Amino acid sequence: MEKFEINILGCGSALPTLRHQATSQVVNIREKLFMIDCGEGTQVQLRRSRLKFTRLNNIFISHLHGDHCFGLIGLISTFGMLERTADLHIYSHPDLEELLTPQLNFFCKGMHYKVIFHPINPKEQNVIYEDRSVSIETIPLQHRMPTCGFLFREKPTPNHIKRDMIDFYRIPLWMINRIKNGEDFILEDGTTVPNERLTTPSDPPRTYAYCSDTAYMPRITEQIKGVDLLFHEATFDESELPRAKQTQHSTAKQAAQIALHAQAKQLLIGHFSARYEDENILLQEAKAVFPQTFLAKENMIFKL
Amino acid sequence: MEKFEINILGCGSALPTLRHQATSQVVNIREKLFMIDCGEGTQVQLRRSRLKFTRLNNIFISHLHGDHCFGLIGLISTFGMLERTADLHIYSHPDLEELLTPQLNFFCKGMHYKVIFHPINPKEQNVIYEDRSVSIETIPLQHRMPTCGFLFREKPTPNHIKRDMIDFYRIPLWMINRIKNGEDFILEDGTTVPNERLTTPSDPPRTYAYCSDTAYMPRITEQIKGVDLLFHEATFDESELPRAKQTQHSTAKQAAQIALHAQAKQLLIGHFSARYEDENILLQEAKAVFPQTFLAKENMIFKL
Repeated sequence: MEKFEINILGCGSALPTLRHQATSQVVNIREKLFMIDCGEGTQVQLRRSRLKFTRLNNIFISHLHGDHCFGLIGLISTFGMLERTADLHIYSHPDLEELLTPQLNFFCKGMHYKVIFHPINPKEQNVIYEDRSVSIETIPLQHRMPTCGFLFREKPTPNHIKRDMIDFYRIPLWMINRIKNGEDFILEDGTTVPNERLTTPSDPPRTYAYCSDTAYMPRITEQIKGVDLLFHEATFDESELPRAKQTQHSTAKQAAQIALHAQAKQLLIGHFSARYEDENILLQEAKAVFPQTFLAKENMIFKL
Repeated sequence: MEKFEINILGCGSALPTLRHQATSQVVNIREKLFMIDCGEGTQVQLRRSRLKFTRLNNIFISHLHGDHCFGLIGLISTFGMLERTADLHIYSHPDLEELLTPQLNFFCKGMHYKVIFHPINPKEQNVIYEDRSVSIETIPLQHRMPTCGFLFREKPTPNHIKRDMIDFYRIPLWMINRIKNGEDFILEDGTTVPNERLTTPSDPPRTYAYCSDTAYMPRITEQIKGVDLLFHEATFDESELPRAKQTQHSTAKQAAQIALHAQAKQLLIGHFSARYEDENILLQEAKAVFPQTFLAKENMIFKL
């Protein structure tokens, strides 16, 4: 199966601790890397992950709280020192460009690559990125400032062609990709060999939804229905519900309710408040509602 | 002896590695903390050091390269979340205020403390900070942008009064501090008891010089003459001398030559290039010229 992996670089919340790094993830789809959020220290975590810096061309910022974006300037600056030449695309609320531009002009003079900002509207569901392998759309969330999640939808991969059929029908090389992509094969005598006979179906396309930071938002379940993996913030346990409401965060139980109602296959929780020495309380709370829950952890790779 | 300690939070150079953190130190003088430089990740290193955040009121920035200041916004923002109320003073080239102000306005709204910028002129030797225990002056350095080091001069502490003399001459309580600070004591019959008879001299005041980043600058040796500890950058070994010259950094040997000519008592080298897996090559090179050389290391506490 083609690679589709979530690399957790950091899953702490606003207040840094020695247990958790600030928020950042890298989604690796067929060796193309997509970074989500970039808190302070992300560049070191990226180095630790051994993911190839040059494979990262797109960064998605959920919202402009420091723990989700203070690492950008250091990352961009380091890429410059490493003599990157490929454009780096950053998708975020338009305020980020205004904040970063003076810093880039001062600290990153003479870099051999461009940082290209793509303003997104966190209030709308829009496809903001698309290539041959994946489309990425915004998931409007509810937080103390404009915030959105990101839904990664893998594109269908071509069917697998049956080796013995190639030989049997003497299918020429130039037809292989066309058949993989669904065409039938016409024999010299005009007979049609239907595609189903020549191929086995490819693996179903996978989906990943990242939802952080957010208050409990049941209406997102429609958009993320049936997702293979949902990452949902679980800053607090249920005893802190009033604090969760006040700060527009979610409890672990609420994260699990979202996963349940969205009929997600698996749930990964993160963005843990600094108050928890041990996040198992959050895990237990979520599992009671949605058994297929996992705790995010720095340097974890979650394979889809 | 009163506390005078250098806490190394980070001693790497521009390119982050898994071995070293970006530059930052905390000088602890009698439990008052003075931070020098604040690269990305400093706030986490500060937490790791277990130094009390509330004891830190003054930050000194040597120059505006990212590896010396990208950690400021995160540190300031975290202090805000921790409900700090005391002013935080930042001493740096005036450009820093211009760069940080828009970020503070955006990310640090509603904080209960003020960040106060003190512009310094890196080209001049000036006393930029002074209190009862210490004075701090700039050391003009030579780098690719305006840069200065910092010279910490401890103020003399009062002499120690001899306990048995207090009893013998029945010295009243209100005279004790005056005698510690040098006064003689006059007996009821008018006889003068000279101060030397009543006290033993206090420990001599100590000095610490921080010099990073800089090309080889022999003329600084005058200003830092006889310093108890010199921290000097040693980005490269001697085989990289051309690169050192080009980037306006120093080799370990040059750092040692500065220490030797300045008649420093001890030398601590740091700001190691990412190319060294093992900095012992730098240590050996420096020790050949100045035997009392030590390698800086994260989480090290160097006591004066």
